[in-house]
Amino acid sequence: MIFKEKANAIVGQSGGPTTAINATLAGVISASLASDQIDVLYGAKNGVEGMLREDVINLSEIFDCKEKLDRLSATPAAALGSCRLKLPAVENAVNNEKYIKLFEFFKKNNIRYFFYIGGNDSMDTVSKLSAVCDGFGWDMNFVGVPKTIDNDLALTDHTPGYGSAAKFIATVISEMLCDTAVYTVNAVTIVEIMGRDTGWLTAASALASVNNGIGPDYVYLPERDFDYQSFFMDIEEAFKKHPNVLIAVSEGLHLADGRLVGEGMQSGDTDVFGHKYLDGTAKELEIAVKKWFGCKVRSVELNLPQRCAAHAASKTDIEESFSVGSAAVEASLKGKSDCMMCIIRNEGKEYSVSYMPAPVSEIANKVKYVPDDFINEKGNNVTQKCIDYMLPLVNGEATYYTKNGLPDFFTLPF
Amino acid sequence: MIFKEKANAIVGQSGGPTTAINATLAGVISASLASDQIDVLYGAKNGVEGMLREDVINLSEIFDCKEKLDRLSATPAAALGSCRLKLPAVENAVNNEKYIKLFEFFKKNNIRYFFYIGGNDSMDTVSKLSAVCDGFGWDMNFVGVPKTIDNDLALTDHTPGYGSAAKFIATVISEMLCDTAVYTVNAVTIVEIMGRDTGWLTAASALASVNNGIGPDYVYLPERDFDYQSFFMDIEEAFKKHPNVLIAVSEGLHLADGRLVGEGMQSGDTDVFGHKYLDGTAKELEIAVKKWFGCKVRSVELNLPQRCAAHAASKTDIEESFSVGSAAVEASLKGKSDCMMCIIRNEGKEYSVSYMPAPVSEIANKVKYVPDDFINEKGNNVTQKCIDYMLPLVNGEATYYTKNGLPDFFTLPF
Repeated sequence: MIFKEKANAIVGQSGGPTTAINATLAGVISASLASDQIDVLYGAKNGVEGMLREDVINLSEIFDCKEKLDRLSATPAAALGSCRLKLPAVENAVNNEKYIKLFEFFKKNNIRYFFYIGGNDSMDTVSKLSAVCDGFGWDMNFVGVPKTIDNDLALTDHTPGYGSAAKFIATVISEMLCDTAVYTVNAVTIVEIMGRDTGWLTAASALASVNNGIGPDYVYLPERDFDYQSFFMDIEEAFKKHPNVLIAVSEGLHLADGRLVGEGMQSGDTDVFGHKYLDGTAKELEIAVKKWFGCKVRSVELNLPQRCAAHAASKTDIEESFSVGSAAVEASLKGKSDCMMCIIRNEGKEYSVSYMPAPVSEIANKVKYVPDDFINEKGNNVTQKCIDYMLPLVNGEATYYTKNGLPDFFTLPF
Repeated sequence: MIFKEKANAIVGQSGGPTTAINATLAGVISASLASDQIDVLYGAKNGVEGMLREDVINLSEIFDCKEKLDRLSATPAAALGSCRLKLPAVENAVNNEKYIKLFEFFKKNNIRYFFYIGGNDSMDTVSKLSAVCDGFGWDMNFVGVPKTIDNDLALTDHTPGYGSAAKFIATVISEMLCDTAVYTVNAVTIVEIMGRDTGWLTAASALASVNNGIGPDYVYLPERDFDYQSFFMDIEEAFKKHPNVLIAVSEGLHLADGRLVGEGMQSGDTDVFGHKYLDGTAKELEIAVKKWFGCKVRSVELNLPQRCAAHAASKTDIEESFSVGSAAVEASLKGKSDCMMCIIRNEGKEYSVSYMPAPVSEIANKVKYVPDDFINEKGNNVTQKCIDYMLPLVNGEATYYTKNGLPDFFTLPF
């Protein structure tokens, strides 16, 4: 609903951090400061967890100049801290301790606007709070702002954070292609890229070929079943062309029977949402290829830097991440709630985007896979259509602050 | 010796590639083009291997403008290709097929200047060729130019390539420190950094603390024996301060009895120089910490990007790498041979360097370890003296060429 009286707002960050999540926070802060309908914007430490223990800071007070916002935008990971708290089911929420505490906190502090920057699981929080709000007799607008390097959220053309992760992946793949090409003996390099269920990040490795035609020999996504025999035949084919074969694989690669390729290497640990921690796919394949071909094989896991390499962030991504945060505030002020801000790619030859809210129920707990026409027939690479989709998202070098030749990141006074 | 007649020169690259090795090649090319004593500078494909099979290109012809040299400088890995060929012992060289072929090639092409850009093992090649030269009745100057991210060569203050690797390591460690700080539950992140025998690269992780005081909790180098009990006690100590512990370990970490920490994880494969391929140290420690503390543990291997991340190269390193290449040509023209160019750190408050040749025999097959006063008493971190030594080497951002937001690397027409 639209509130006539001035009120306060709160913002939290949740889920796995990304390079761009602070740019979105900066966008939320910037638009809140610019609005005369919002009095104070609070920042909750560790998302909903911080709201439950009333651990919040006054962001309106801290961000007294543009330079601070710029530096926050260039700092990776969640400056407010993150959480993985899953709120209880909405049935009988009015008697639930967590919901009671949260709404007491909102009422006490006259908070009418709630912004939550996160991925799929965070939209679940937005959806639940919107659903139980009426029961507590407190009108409030809940708006989610997407964030995930995985690019697997429904409805939005792409997710803030994906472009920077994709840029880092394509960049280091290009560099590793230079590196691995120097020797003349047969060798295979297998690069494992993040992506539990979807291949968006692994697909980005193919961008390495855009400028000079040299990209990974093969790109295997979890959207297709992995088959060892075809894999070995693919490598044999590549060896006919050059001695140095580079392959990009998704950490979520699985066999036709559903077993994960890296299963033997993994601890089996899961997070609170039941997601398995994955790794070991490239290592497993390294062992298999070494056995089959007897050549030198190296496995490389790109690991954490994929989601925090601020020094190689995409200008397009950082700018859009900021804008989608601002757009969330504007939508909220216009009465939008129970929604997530989406990035819509406009029609036309030149790349441009708009921001639109969409119902959270159509996004939460859904997964957007790499579409069929983005993957080639053999299932061992991406198509030009996929390249055309990804390329504008990595465009431009984001501003990055250094001192002594090293990153100069912004920290909040917690 | 000093040659009065104009003659030709040859340059090769050898050993593991680095981010800066092409900047040194550009320096050699630049000084050769500027000299009226050198007619043609040839580039040998894959180092000595290319000279043996006469696979060379005319670099004087290819580099017809400065822009090409700048772009070469910004391209990682060895543009000429590399090799790991170890030349036979020098005894009875005049009857050895390899040496005969090489000197036939030098004579036929009137090559009097030989430049070899490489690490420790490559200086062995310079040393051997210098030693056998007389026997073939062909006067020639052999000059080595150092290159190794490992920084483990004797006499030189530091090695070209180290500064860029150190900068990349410190940068991603800073970023990972942001990333791992977002959650409130106890977690340990163990980052494995290259360095077989020496801890120079691992030490660079400590640079992350320079700007905001937040660095790795501990830094373990192979210069000290690793002890699991002290390691666990260190982590316990860190948990008293904060829930997120980040530790940097060298891939070459070993126990007091000499066994490598990562031994159980390794294939045992060695290269032609008998060096073991190492990895698995962080993985081994991940398992041990998980067992001991029962908390979340993640291991990260920085892997190949350490030696090829041109997008994050140090300006100081790239400029020095270029200059040391040029200095090698100048020394050679002045009659120097059987030597390697060294970088000398000048006295004075402001950081500056000079370039000086030193006898190869004092460098080849020797290792420069991190000195005792660079490591703290407990052996679990570096000292301020070490930071002061490393800091100027990572200074400045090297020029880096992009197109479509992606690296635009230079390739030679092989």
